Amino acid sequence: MPVFERHVFVCHNERPEGSARPSCMSKATGDLLTEMQQLAKAAGLAGKVRVQKSGCLDQCEHGPMVVVYPEAVWYGSVRPVDAAEIVSGHLVGGRPIERLRVAEECLNTKSCPHRG
Amino acid sequence: MPVFERHVFVCHNERPEGSARPSCMSKATGDLLTEMQQLAKAAGLAGKVRVQKSGCLDQCEHGPMVVVYPEAVWYGSVRPVDAAEIVSGHLVGGRPIERLRVAEECLNTKSCPHRG
Repeated sequence: MPVFERHVFVCHNERPEGSARPSCMSKATGDLLTEMQQLAKAAGLAGKVRVQKSGCLDQCEHGPMVVVYPEAVWYGSVRPVDAAEIVSGHLVGGRPIERLRVAEECLNTKSCPHRG
Repeated sequence: MPVFERHVFVCHNERPEGSARPSCMSKATGDLLTEMQQLAKAAGLAGKVRVQKSGCLDQCEHGPMVVVYPEAVWYGSVRPVDAAEIVSGHLVGGRPIERLRVAEECLNTKSCPHRG
C-alpha cells in the first residue's frame, strides 16, 4: 500500500505553565491518543490508518486538536470519550463527525475570535 | 483560510540507543525542521503552509522522514541541505522532488526490504 488511507495526527504539544497560548496536552483529560489507537486497531484499521502524535498544530485555543489527512478534517476539544465516534464514524465509516469540527472562521486564522 | 494549502510533518522521533528500529532524530545531521521552517517563511508561505514536527511516521528505516499532505508525498533520507529544494520545488512550485521520495515498495509495508 503506497499511502495510508488516512493519517490522523493528535497534538501532543505541551507548553510551560503560564504560556500565552494553551497547549493540548494540558487540556487532555485522559489519553486520547492511546484510546484512538486502540479503537482503530480493534476496528481492523492497522496498516490502513495511522493514528499518531504530532507537535503543535497551531489551533491551540481549540484543543485538544486532531487533524485527519488527506481530507484535512480538523477536530477540536476532543476528549477521550469522543475517540469511539471518530474511529467508527469517520475512520471506518468515512463520515466526518460534524459536532467535533472546528468552526471554519476559527481555523488557521489569526483573527479567530477565540485567540487572545 | 479553512485549511493549510500544505501541511508538512517532519519526524522528530527519538528512540533509546540500541533500539530495534532506527529513529529519525538520531540520523539527522542538523536541524532539518528549523531549516524548512525558515525557508518556507522566507518564501512567503507563512499561514499557507505549516511545517512542523511529528511523532514517529513509521517509516523509520528510511528516515529522516518528511510527509507532505494533502498529497501524501513521502520523503526519506532528508538532510537539512535538501530543505531548499523541497521548499522551492514542492511547497512553492507544486512539484514533488522525485529523487527524495521513498520507493513505493518500501512505503507503509512490513515487507519493505530495508526492514530488519
